[in-house]
Amino acid sequence: MTTAAPRIAIVGVAGRMGRTLVNAVCQDDGATLAAGIVEPGSSLVGADLGELAGVGRLGISAVDSLASVVDDIDVLIDFTTPAVTLANLAFCAEHGKGIVIGTTGLSDAELEKLDGYAQRVPMVFAPNMSVGVNLTLKLLETAARALGDEGYDIEVIEAHHRHKVDAPSGTALRMGEVVAAALDRNLKEHGVFERVGQCGPRQASEIGFATVRAGDIVGEHTVMFATEGERIEITHKASSRMTFARGAVRAARWVSGQGVGRYGMNDVLGLDEQ
Amino acid sequence: MTTAAPRIAIVGVAGRMGRTLVNAVCQDDGATLAAGIVEPGSSLVGADLGELAGVGRLGISAVDSLASVVDDIDVLIDFTTPAVTLANLAFCAEHGKGIVIGTTGLSDAELEKLDGYAQRVPMVFAPNMSVGVNLTLKLLETAARALGDEGYDIEVIEAHHRHKVDAPSGTALRMGEVVAAALDRNLKEHGVFERVGQCGPRQASEIGFATVRAGDIVGEHTVMFATEGERIEITHKASSRMTFARGAVRAARWVSGQGVGRYGMNDVLGLDEQ
Amino acid sequence: MTTAAPRIAIVGVAGRMGRTLVNAVCQDDGATLAAGIVEPGSSLVGADLGELAGVGRLGISAVDSLASVVDDIDVLIDFTTPAVTLANLAFCAEHGKGIVIGTTGLSDAELEKLDGYAQRVPMVFAPNMSVGVNLTLKLLETAARALGDEGYDIEVIEAHHRHKVDAPSGTALRMGEVVAAALDRNLKEHGVFERVGQCGPRQASEIGFATVRAGDIVGEHTVMFATEGERIEITHKASSRMTFARGAVRAARWVSGQGVGRYGMNDVLGLDEQ
Amino acid sequence: MTTAAPRIAIVGVAGRMGRTLVNAVCQDDGATLAAGIVEPGSSLVGADLGELAGVGRLGISAVDSLASVVDDIDVLIDFTTPAVTLANLAFCAEHGKGIVIGTTGLSDAELEKLDGYAQRVPMVFAPNMSVGVNLTLKLLETAARALGDEGYDIEVIEAHHRHKVDAPSGTALRMGEVVAAALDRNLKEHGVFERVGQCGPRQASEIGFATVRAGDIVGEHTVMFATEGERIEITHKASSRMTFARGAVRAARWVSGQGVGRYGMNDVLGLDEQ
Repeated sequence: MTTAAPRIAIVGVAGRMGRTLVNAVCQDDGATLAAGIVEPGSSLVGADLGELAGVGRLGISAVDSLASVVDDIDVLIDFTTPAVTLANLAFCAEHGKGIVIGTTGLSDAELEKLDGYAQRVPMVFAPNMSVGVNLTLKLLETAARALGDEGYDIEVIEAHHRHKVDAPSGTALRMGEVVAAALDRNLKEHGVFERVGQCGPRQASEIGFATVRAGDIVGEHTVMFATEGERIEITHKASSRMTFARGAVRAARWVSGQGVGRYGMNDVLGLDEQ
Repeated sequence: MTTAAPRIAIVGVAGRMGRTLVNAVCQDDGATLAAGIVEPGSSLVGADLGELAGVGRLGISAVDSLASVVDDIDVLIDFTTPAVTLANLAFCAEHGKGIVIGTTGLSDAELEKLDGYAQRVPMVFAPNMSVGVNLTLKLLETAARALGDEGYDIEVIEAHHRHKVDAPSGTALRMGEVVAAALDRNLKEHGVFERVGQCGPRQASEIGFATVRAGDIVGEHTVMFATEGERIEITHKASSRMTFARGAVRAARWVSGQGVGRYGMNDVLGLDEQ
Repeated sequence: MTTAAPRIAIVGVAGRMGRTLVNAVCQDDGATLAAGIVEPGSSLVGADLGELAGVGRLGISAVDSLASVVDDIDVLIDFTTPAVTLANLAFCAEHGKGIVIGTTGLSDAELEKLDGYAQRVPMVFAPNMSVGVNLTLKLLETAARALGDEGYDIEVIEAHHRHKVDAPSGTALRMGEVVAAALDRNLKEHGVFERVGQCGPRQASEIGFATVRAGDIVGEHTVMFATEGERIEITHKASSRMTFARGAVRAARWVSGQGVGRYGMNDVLGLDEQ
Repeated sequence: MTTAAPRIAIVGVAGRMGRTLVNAVCQDDGATLAAGIVEPGSSLVGADLGELAGVGRLGISAVDSLASVVDDIDVLIDFTTPAVTLANLAFCAEHGKGIVIGTTGLSDAELEKLDGYAQRVPMVFAPNMSVGVNLTLKLLETAARALGDEGYDIEVIEAHHRHKVDAPSGTALRMGEVVAAALDRNLKEHGVFERVGQCGPRQASEIGFATVRAGDIVGEHTVMFATEGERIEITHKASSRMTFARGAVRAARWVSGQGVGRYGMNDVLGLDEQ
């Protein structure tokens, strides 16, 4: 395993996220696309990874097993299902590969198994690999500390596509928590999640949330700090899965130079050190 | 009374709206500032209207009665209280003046008295004199008719200052009503005013509302029409009372050429004729 | 040819736009996906159109000739190259099919040939098939007429991805032209395309343009009408090729019920009739 | 001089900024309004400061000399002209008062005289006292360091009122400089201030500027960091002179506890210590 241009295998290359990862690796000068894995029996076995991803022929064909490419790869990127991810962790442990895991929905039991592999595999595991979201959280902390006691009202506005079933988004809640923690406020106590009818004037310590659901919005979050005379707004807009794919590739480059252990995006981005 | 450069009296010139009206009349080539009225006994009797408004000396001093300037004025602009406004309507009826009324909070009985003067006074009475808000309502109607049945989600987002006690704003609700009417939907049935927790995917016929309360925001409204691949957003932002003052001056110019009757901003702007 | 659920062939289904068109047809209840054409000899002949587009297996395989599916299709959608489009027009004329053409870059000679087919083929030919852009132009016309002479400054702000080579965008210029025409101004005379250094105060009749180039922005256009106290902003944001694909499918549904002739998006959307 | 609720004199209280400062002091629990100075001979001598500022009677009358209130005040706030400011510095030096100076346009000779008083007077001198602008500059530095080498395009978009004569704004240029410095780029070399016609694709190291001039926009600045898949936008919006007035009052509170010396807003806000 080398730190320069690690050879990357993308698991689940037939899906939308897999194709996006092909695209992201191709655009990254510090990473090399080495393999793409599809499910056994897929009609896409043998398809060119580049044609599959819509980036033009790359000369690498999709395969249906990691074993067949074991000598060609350094790091896996895996946005699949918990069962597939756990099987891939076993593969990594056996063959000395690193892994970046974007799979979600793991049960507590599955998380425990994943943690067990942290002794044997260098892994990055993060629910949101967007570089921008992780930076935004850092900026919010700085802003809240500078403004919080000086009469600035704080509001979190988020917009997502019509299919999203919960509100506010998990990322919006994390933003609220980061701001609340910086101000020694409790989000459970100070968060205001609805305003309807005669709700009275705003309390100074409120952290308000507003939710928009429409169309195909991938994810937009704005935190507003407003007082008489001015506003500061810190906004993150995800425009495609590429934001997560790029973060995953950056994590793959980073993890290829690390020892075994379970890491997060703050480790990858070095944000805690600033 | 002439249509060219009507001579305008501003009632309540000591208040913030009154000062803003001085400013708006001074900026309008088609109107002449003729008088400013303050309450009897105010320390501002005799103060120069321009110095009061912060626009430099104008050579017109504040007075405390309309009677003292009756021969100098054509039209009153009145953003005061119901009792003052009704007294001013009696003055207008007696002396043949027009009036533009931005006063709010009239009871049903007071509205009936106001309507009685419609037989004797040319008056414009409107809850929101902003040219932009009235135009925006027209644009929303056009957009809703063109997009409504083609899978576009509609959301209304509004932001106001921390002192506002109700939500959504009256203007946001009017926007929702205009859109709903254009689509034969009932806002009471299809309006969604809160989304918290596991609220499920968006229904296609929903008209969603999101509310922000922060700082000194005068009033911002956006209506979003979003579908897979695109969004159209129609936004109105009020930045100061000048938006209402300018609308009032435009109404004053217009009403000085009209016969008796009660008119609204759509009449002033000619929007119904397009 | 029927007006209900016309059977659609997508030409160039291997490209990004072709895949997006597959997606758009699948989402449209009023259209049926009937065929997808790839270049002769492509490795994707025989691939499932749904798997190709990332929407799951559809049971329709990509073919490399229109002739092989002539009896299965009613309308072609063609976003390819001028030469391919002209060949497809000959096919449509011979076999009585309609066509929606999003191909750009036709020379004058090629446009003339295309026009020749208007006597034999029902065709929609439009440089920008986005429903939203076409509606936005209509809204701009209404707004400019209502506000233009009342001291509102007009500015056009557009943002596109880093690869775009010209500025302002063609769509931004069209927006400026629509506004200028509504106000009897000449964009060549009143358009202001740069402001650098000591450029002096804004002239009232200017139509200003500001250009942003960054990241992967598909296309965002805002036209601002601003005066003292308020702003109206009309914004269009394209988030993916789906906006063009959806417009193309809507055009395909519409053209399948039309006689021969060359039509534009205003015909499809009925915007001129409002 | 005490740190708790210093007694504040506002110089130039007849002007717009002076009135706004009255308002800002009244809203700040940590400061006391003690005096307001107008020009000798003004018709506003004796006017109530609160009525002048439109916040209701305060029982403090405008005076036309600092000498007459010398025992009632701790700190001056001065947004006037260079000559007036230098005279006021002499007064502060003689009587042991602090001063916050927002006056602009000082010549080099005047700046030198001002600096001379730094040995005798505690003074805050800053071209832009907005808390938000100063925080925004700090956030930009953090963001640029985290993102700069990872393929994020940087653009600065600013909007100001129609009367502004230069472009880009001084604040926009400072934002560009902060970002450039964080990335070891030279703004003179990498700043792009116009894009018109066939300007080719964007260079990765460009820092682009876009300028909007319209209506009464007090000042809006956005710095965008955009790459494939996401954007981070950091925005400051000034909505009134209150943003500068509030910063000035905060500076007055802070300087009342300091020894002699010339300070800036970073000292007041403690931003360098984070």
